[in-house]
Amino acid sequence: MMRTGFQRVARLAHHKALPGNPHLLPRLHQASAFGSSTHSLVARFCPEKTDLKDYALPNASWCPDMLSLYQEFLEKTKSGMWVKLPSFKSNREHIQGLKLPSGLVAASDKQDWRIFTRCIQLEGQGYEYVIFFHPSEKKSVCLFQPGPYLEGAPGFAHGGSLAAMMDETFSKTAYLAGEGLFTLSLNIRFKNLIPVGSLAVLDIQVEKIEDQKLYMSCIAQSRDKQTVYAKCSGVFLQLQLEEDPSQ
Amino acid sequence: MMRTGFQRVARLAHHKALPGNPHLLPRLHQASAFGSSTHSLVARFCPEKTDLKDYALPNASWCPDMLSLYQEFLEKTKSGMWVKLPSFKSNREHIQGLKLPSGLVAASDKQDWRIFTRCIQLEGQGYEYVIFFHPSEKKSVCLFQPGPYLEGAPGFAHGGSLAAMMDETFSKTAYLAGEGLFTLSLNIRFKNLIPVGSLAVLDIQVEKIEDQKLYMSCIAQSRDKQTVYAKCSGVFLQLQLEEDPSQ
Repeated sequence: MMRTGFQRVARLAHHKALPGNPHLLPRLHQASAFGSSTHSLVARFCPEKTDLKDYALPNASWCPDMLSLYQEFLEKTKSGMWVKLPSFKSNREHIQGLKLPSGLVAASDKQDWRIFTRCIQLEGQGYEYVIFFHPSEKKSVCLFQPGPYLEGAPGFAHGGSLAAMMDETFSKTAYLAGEGLFTLSLNIRFKNLIPVGSLAVLDIQVEKIEDQKLYMSCIAQSRDKQTVYAKCSGVFLQLQLEEDPSQ
Repeated sequence: MMRTGFQRVARLAHHKALPGNPHLLPRLHQASAFGSSTHSLVARFCPEKTDLKDYALPNASWCPDMLSLYQEFLEKTKSGMWVKLPSFKSNREHIQGLKLPSGLVAASDKQDWRIFTRCIQLEGQGYEYVIFFHPSEKKSVCLFQPGPYLEGAPGFAHGGSLAAMMDETFSKTAYLAGEGLFTLSLNIRFKNLIPVGSLAVLDIQVEKIEDQKLYMSCIAQSRDKQTVYAKCSGVFLQLQLEEDPSQ
């Protein structure tokens, strides 16, 4: 069987973390190889002062539902239980000073990178979203308003745009909850279409962390929970980022 | 149990097709409710003359692998076995003269719509892709080159961008192979990351059509098939579009 890239990198990273251990992806206690606490990950991920533009802030395109729920969650951040995650133009900005594990280097002469869910910069036309994270309960809420550039069937968001939004919210949650770095699987069941310009609320939960993997669930629904748009489960691979001496 | 939107619309459409039948989503012979042949669907979908811009044409950003494989498949279209699908700015243009089944109307004052996978118009920065369809074998090939606006991990395509590309290729294939209209489920297993700017080849196959559903599979890999990027299965709901008297 061909060994996949993820497996290869996981093996390398694991051997580095636990030298001498001959097993591929054995059962690990989270703290053994993944020592960074959620607190320190969040502190690094959410700098108090930065010159980077945060795209997860209200703008004139946000519908009233999105705006009022944003305010509700912003209130909850005051207690320190919830954290509003900033959203920069690229993951390169999110992981400044760190780099992917050895073995994962992509050579390129490209300059202008954007994280996929921030690929459209026109306000309201593409992805509008903000993610709130609850560190102690390892859960997140994403407020998502798809614009008309995310269309699939006329007037409705493309299923793929919701899939990507779920993957991205899983991704940020997985990283902060336990250094989950790569999507291993997504299993999505679509129930209803999301009208373009309306709010979908994604509730994400880390179900368990086991064998170097995070198991997560997501339900996307209307604010009043009367309409389920989709349900999703996802599995992420834990891998530690490395210090980047070039930065 | 709350009835989902898809189920409700399917029921309405089915009752319309087979009045008097009391069953919800009974077993249907494909030809009974879904009479359009693949030939007529393809003929309508691929107009010989149109003023609409086709985005699935080579441009200066295409890598040599993408360009040469495109030429290979273009040669195959000469025998009539393969068809190159045009790719317009919006699905509204793909289904001109038709509309979604009754019960699926989204009111909006938006004007500038784009299908999600054509949301970025800068050549080479976002989605570059072209789909070839094989009507008699109900299979497709999608040549996909992700640009730097589709980034996830630095230097690599976001898993969500591949998920969306798979969903979109499934979608076009499902429609032409048997009037598959809505994604019911996607099940994706990611194996390796796709470097930004490189070619991924998606091979899609309709596995079976049963109970008003199309069951499909996809494998995304490098051109030489040495690297599997992801495998996916998808289920689509069959529903007939309706004539739109307003057009």
